[in-house]
Amino acid sequence: MHTTVSSATREVVIGPDRPFCLIGERINPTGRKLFAEKLRAGDLSRIAVDVEQQVAGGATMLDVNMGVPLGDEAELLAAAVTMIQDLTDLPLCIDSSVVEALDAGLRAYRGKALVNSVTGERERLDAILPLVKEHGAAVIALPNEEDEIPDDPRKRLEITRKIVDVAVDEYGIALSDILIDPLAMPIGADSTLVTKTLDTIALIRAEFGLNMTLGASNVSFGMPGRPALGAAFLPMAMRCGLTSAVMDVRTPQIVEAVKAADLLLGNDEWGAAWIAAYRAQQQAS
Amino acid sequence: MHTTVSSATREVVIGPDRPFCLIGERINPTGRKLFAEKLRAGDLSRIAVDVEQQVAGGATMLDVNMGVPLGDEAELLAAAVTMIQDLTDLPLCIDSSVVEALDAGLRAYRGKALVNSVTGERERLDAILPLVKEHGAAVIALPNEEDEIPDDPRKRLEITRKIVDVAVDEYGIALSDILIDPLAMPIGADSTLVTKTLDTIALIRAEFGLNMTLGASNVSFGMPGRPALGAAFLPMAMRCGLTSAVMDVRTPQIVEAVKAADLLLGNDEWGAAWIAAYRAQQQAS
Repeated sequence: MHTTVSSATREVVIGPDRPFCLIGERINPTGRKLFAEKLRAGDLSRIAVDVEQQVAGGATMLDVNMGVPLGDEAELLAAAVTMIQDLTDLPLCIDSSVVEALDAGLRAYRGKALVNSVTGERERLDAILPLVKEHGAAVIALPNEEDEIPDDPRKRLEITRKIVDVAVDEYGIALSDILIDPLAMPIGADSTLVTKTLDTIALIRAEFGLNMTLGASNVSFGMPGRPALGAAFLPMAMRCGLTSAVMDVRTPQIVEAVKAADLLLGNDEWGAAWIAAYRAQQQAS
Repeated sequence: MHTTVSSATREVVIGPDRPFCLIGERINPTGRKLFAEKLRAGDLSRIAVDVEQQVAGGATMLDVNMGVPLGDEAELLAAAVTMIQDLTDLPLCIDSSVVEALDAGLRAYRGKALVNSVTGERERLDAILPLVKEHGAAVIALPNEEDEIPDDPRKRLEITRKIVDVAVDEYGIALSDILIDPLAMPIGADSTLVTKTLDTIALIRAEFGLNMTLGASNVSFGMPGRPALGAAFLPMAMRCGLTSAVMDVRTPQIVEAVKAADLLLGNDEWGAAWIAAYRAQQQAS
């Protein structure tokens, strides 16, 4: 299955036979106090640095989240989307839990965006899916409900089925425009959580063949050696069927692991991208 | 399933719920011209360096191959096994395609060795399995025949079944003492080869639950950036069911990837080994 997203001038195709789609996670005030303060004051200038670093790091798309407490998220998101589209032609992932903010971000966007995200509760589906349909966007769906993350991969599969049914049958959204987020959780919290995420990925791939994305940095949260954990996690998840991740693209070890997995999984024919990246790295050092 | 091997004083248990078994590949004259010349002249002194480096690198076991053209492989292998067992208590993997050399190596060995390897031809099985049984060893079996590597993972599964039947039913070898080598091939030769190896691993795990090992360095043969390829390949293979590899343990990036995958797959409870390794690395730098 192929999911196509685009900016005004560039198209990105996500799929199991394509190079992995790296969605830069950095434009997000969560855990960035100074950035959050600036955004609240209406100063978006730092975003230019985040865009530049992530483009240089190899991002395929950029996630944009403006969830600042006490900030006007809708206004900020629309302004950020407009600004970022002047800086790069990478397609964007418009990220908010606030329906009005998603709407504002989508109105400001030129191209086919990816909406991040909708969960399985009926009222969330009914609030967000019409926006997705109206703007002709693709959407990331999380198989959880009522703020509870189901432990059992089969339960996540069941909620996925429910979301897919509503999105396709009731809202006329194409199956290929739905990406499932199989819910990546910190290994530090429970040693079985990553296996459950991987099992969920494999189940969704086998059952629906849908594209998937997740917040890859969650996995290493609270642990030392985060780059190495991200670099080991993503190839495993890719083998199970993950086709994209909202991730740290500024850390070369993690990006390199994804490119290596692209090659090993047969999505970099003749190793052309791998060899070119290696040569560029040799010349830079 | 658990496979137990041992030296005179140390036991290693291989299994899907255990930390990955890292078998150091270095004590092997293939591609090492100077080492091969020394061995041919009866000078085994370089082995001490190889042992030290691989122990320092984190090896769980060491592979020992003395296949020098025009050398007396049986004599060399017996001498090397004796020497290495004086230097380390890591269990050994006795590696030769020559039956007499395997026999000599096994006679010199104290403990329960791993024999590397037997293939699926009837005459090889009949030559090597009696040695395995006589010495109470474990054995690595390659699902290929007549020097042909079957392309189709189901064909590899079929040969695996044949080998297992002969080993268990005719030679009385315990199922847990058989490790399958799912045959790792260079990605540079064909972009589908790694996927076929991973599919083979998953099939053998599902069908037999056997432990598996492979020559991990094969995968990156001929490509630039070999450490990153090894570091991406092994976590993928581990997720599919690989429980051991004959590998480059002297390259920290690859060993770190294996340890990260151990943690992510739930085989490093509370992250104790991961955190300890990180602290040691911080203190060393």
